[in-house]
Amino acid sequence: MSLEERIAASFATQTMLATLGARLEQVAPGHIIIALPASDGVLQQHGHVHGGAVMSIADSAAGYAAMSVAPEGAEVLTIECKTNFLRPARGALLAEGRVLKAGRTVTVAEADVYDAERTLVAKMIATMAVR
Amino acid sequence: MSLEERIAASFATQTMLATLGARLEQVAPGHIIIALPASDGVLQQHGHVHGGAVMSIADSAAGYAAMSVAPEGAEVLTIECKTNFLRPARGALLAEGRVLKAGRTVTVAEADVYDAERTLVAKMIATMAVR
Amino acid sequence: MSLEERIAASFATQTMLATLGARLEQVAPGHIIIALPASDGVLQQHGHVHGGAVMSIADSAAGYAAMSVAPEGAEVLTIECKTNFLRPARGALLAEGRVLKAGRTVTVAEADVYDAERTLVAKMIATMAVR
Amino acid sequence: MSLEERIAASFATQTMLATLGARLEQVAPGHIIIALPASDGVLQQHGHVHGGAVMSIADSAAGYAAMSVAPEGAEVLTIECKTNFLRPARGALLAEGRVLKAGRTVTVAEADVYDAERTLVAKMIATMAVR
Repeated sequence: MSLEERIAASFATQTMLATLGARLEQVAPGHIIIALPASDGVLQQHGHVHGGAVMSIADSAAGYAAMSVAPEGAEVLTIECKTNFLRPARGALLAEGRVLKAGRTVTVAEADVYDAERTLVAKMIATMAVR
Repeated sequence: MSLEERIAASFATQTMLATLGARLEQVAPGHIIIALPASDGVLQQHGHVHGGAVMSIADSAAGYAAMSVAPEGAEVLTIECKTNFLRPARGALLAEGRVLKAGRTVTVAEADVYDAERTLVAKMIATMAVR
Repeated sequence: MSLEERIAASFATQTMLATLGARLEQVAPGHIIIALPASDGVLQQHGHVHGGAVMSIADSAAGYAAMSVAPEGAEVLTIECKTNFLRPARGALLAEGRVLKAGRTVTVAEADVYDAERTLVAKMIATMAVR
Repeated sequence: MSLEERIAASFATQTMLATLGARLEQVAPGHIIIALPASDGVLQQHGHVHGGAVMSIADSAAGYAAMSVAPEGAEVLTIECKTNFLRPARGALLAEGRVLKAGRTVTVAEADVYDAERTLVAKMIATMAVR
């Protein structure tokens, strides 16, 4: 399987991402883009996109970025992640995951989340276990 | 409205929490419990509960804990949160939010997420803006 | 060597801790206390203890807590840490490190930093690599 | 006073930075560089630069970056910061602070820490209170 096929196959097994309506937009080594279309079902109390939905796509984008540079067959699990919410997130979002430092057992990745005007709304840095 | 009614009313407007099937379990000043029943729609690639679902209930539990000690009518927004995933999360989960330090404009809260055996699976610490 | 001797020996090699005047106060499995006496040389621009000094003792307390439950001879390195500063830190401080989850290759520990009135001034959660 | 003079004056009052031997290298709006020369007094148990020294210059670089875009006279205090340690830090270091999102009461800044070969050894993201 190609890298793109492997990541698409894994993505398809994540029922959380289907529940949110998230889609895999782009796959390159160390660089993943996940889209979250605007939806009435992912909002918080002020009508913005819930932080949990923002973090769901950011975590997955960072995790697949880590997986994309790991040996084929490696499993990737999030050890920890931290997210700064910079602006209210509205409408459709894109999460761009990138590897900061790939390691044999631990990889650090970041994910920037943008809205449709390409404004940065949140930034995550995550530590991933690679097995 | 009582504190419990105010938080239940706000909770009911969060469509993300309804999408995940989360429920408000307990409300006390500075202490909130949110339940996430086991569900096929919140999983990641290994069949565990997705980190995004874990963080959704943790963020909401921490946020409502902050709101529960703020003046009536105050809005609470997550500035940042960081989550350590200690063990794979399986089945039904509970997120317990507690206030660490309440402030006039910034409140710090934590949320511990437990599984049905009362094992700690994740720990979040979050900074909340209070307006 | 006893656990206390091993940790005291490692502590003595950390010139940073000597520079700050930090002292190892208490050693127990999974629980370490480090003291930072009041000093004119560790302050920030408002005369409070600099966040870097607070984080130095917190990081070391969390790291030694992780080391105290690892096999003898294991090295412990901080992968990441996050600190919430809850109140201005003044005068003498104590950092209490505790293990949240010990693992074979990754251990998560927290460190609470108190002032002389036993007020919590900062809270760190750290992920440690164990080798 | 110019921006550079204001930040240099504040820097000079931080005894912690003098204790570590840190120097203010560059000041521009939203962009600060602090140098930490190689020193025998800032090491951890393996002879690398202690994480607390790395975080001290990163926190100060992020804080002054936030201050550099705040109104004159504003005070800046760290609410929280999180640091990923990507590689062992050896020898002389540079911390580059940059503003990610400036706000009226809260500013988010990052600091990248490099060694003398311009290798990224640590990355901090910090939330600053602006008063």
